[in-house]
Amino acid sequence: MSKIVFTSGQYKPYHSAVTHVEDRGYQFGDGIYEVTAVVGGVLVDIEWHLQRKQRSCDEIKLINPYSNKVWEIVFNEVLRLNRISDGLVYSQVTRGESPRNFLFPGESKPNTVVLARSVDHCNVLRKTESGVKVITRPELRWRRPDIKSICLLPSVLKKQEAMEQGAYEVIWIGDDGCVLEGGSSNLFFIDQANKLVTHPSDKRILGGITRRRLLDVAAKNDYLFEEREYGLDELLGAREVFLTSSSTFVAPVVQVDDKLIADGQPGELVSKLRREYLDFVTGFSNY
Amino acid sequence: MSKIVFTSGQYKPYHSAVTHVEDRGYQFGDGIYEVTAVVGGVLVDIEWHLQRKQRSCDEIKLINPYSNKVWEIVFNEVLRLNRISDGLVYSQVTRGESPRNFLFPGESKPNTVVLARSVDHCNVLRKTESGVKVITRPELRWRRPDIKSICLLPSVLKKQEAMEQGAYEVIWIGDDGCVLEGGSSNLFFIDQANKLVTHPSDKRILGGITRRRLLDVAAKNDYLFEEREYGLDELLGAREVFLTSSSTFVAPVVQVDDKLIADGQPGELVSKLRREYLDFVTGFSNY
Repeated sequence: MSKIVFTSGQYKPYHSAVTHVEDRGYQFGDGIYEVTAVVGGVLVDIEWHLQRKQRSCDEIKLINPYSNKVWEIVFNEVLRLNRISDGLVYSQVTRGESPRNFLFPGESKPNTVVLARSVDHCNVLRKTESGVKVITRPELRWRRPDIKSICLLPSVLKKQEAMEQGAYEVIWIGDDGCVLEGGSSNLFFIDQANKLVTHPSDKRILGGITRRRLLDVAAKNDYLFEEREYGLDELLGAREVFLTSSSTFVAPVVQVDDKLIADGQPGELVSKLRREYLDFVTGFSNY
Repeated sequence: MSKIVFTSGQYKPYHSAVTHVEDRGYQFGDGIYEVTAVVGGVLVDIEWHLQRKQRSCDEIKLINPYSNKVWEIVFNEVLRLNRISDGLVYSQVTRGESPRNFLFPGESKPNTVVLARSVDHCNVLRKTESGVKVITRPELRWRRPDIKSICLLPSVLKKQEAMEQGAYEVIWIGDDGCVLEGGSSNLFFIDQANKLVTHPSDKRILGGITRRRLLDVAAKNDYLFEEREYGLDELLGAREVFLTSSSTFVAPVVQVDDKLIADGQPGELVSKLRREYLDFVTGFSNY
């Protein structure tokens, strides 16, 4: 647990990190967030995370209260104060405190929260190593899941449902049958020609940073890949399937609903990609 | 402004009404709310509001921390402490405070907020008396707007856009062209046969309490009415159009996007219905 939290411009003890009940984040979900992995003291792909944070702010016309340089200083200070070298940094920006009204307040200042947690990444990797099960559900979210907003109730409800069914993640299926992404992860598969396939980073999915890095790693290692729409049939017929996210990195999927993927074991390519992704992540850290 | 706010089981001065930054309402929009009008000291249709609050809780598997009786006592106490006889009571329940994780926490207690504001209802009614303009936008919300969740960012963004275009409200248009409802109101029209028409109270709209009461009033006064799907063409060809909500009661609509409704003046029937609705509301109060 974060012992020190950065909020409203100050570093505060966890128990006193509070916000007013009329913070628009609390009454309207009027805010955005980021989750960034920390590996060996290094904030993984921090430039991309801060780029995306700025985009989320722009899309909902929210003033980003800090420059990327200041955000990075704050992230590192929260890590230092909490003595964390491996874990996650969570940050959010909301449209601040104001008497309840749907319309943007004229006066309010954005509110920010930055907190960090220790995570044993090796343990997380071990847990997903033998592959996870996912369930599919019809898309439930708003029409702009590409914006990383804190209105996360749809994913909360269906990730909970997944857990109750012994699954690790929910996969959203669009109204037109397109397989989109996970509740808090992106989805990839490897087709019969050993090509890596994932849904394009358009308005229907959240353009994950781990997704982006994985595609970059794949390109550098001469994998064939394609960003395109695809349906459930194609997913179920895949050689291999996997998820990516900042907290779980690369997790093999061996079952979709009640159907095993290939022989129900993580494939070779995903294990290789996972290794290559982790090599990138740990390459510039103290691991 | 509310001087005293009820939160976490206590009546607190406004400035000290805070919640922890890891309240799930703040990180996930994991909560529900109600807005109830107070007229002449009476909570309008409070039983229906508390019924709907219970339904919202049930739909997202949130424990409603209080019985309806207790909620009513708290609402009235907040009104008394703030010396409000005409205004609005806002109440919300969230899934409480817990270290960030999409899954429901095992341990957390729901958090509650109840606050109240004075509103000069006559002034609100005067402001909308000559009719308002609305704009239409493609549905942006999640697939369960019938649940009164605090994930309100889509409505925040489009109501703001409406205001910037000199309009009073946004009207959501479904993917299939159905006219659904307003950003924080329900929509009715009166067809050429003087029949009252509104979208059915299904999963695509929030079943408004004022909507429900208005249909009840209409039935008691022998109006013809129908709950059914309809498209924009029909709306634009209507004799009269109006909005209902707990905060504005009944507001005539005289313009939809750049098209005037009939002669651009509030019609007779909506004025009559508004009077009849207000008669109901004030009938059991001290007005």
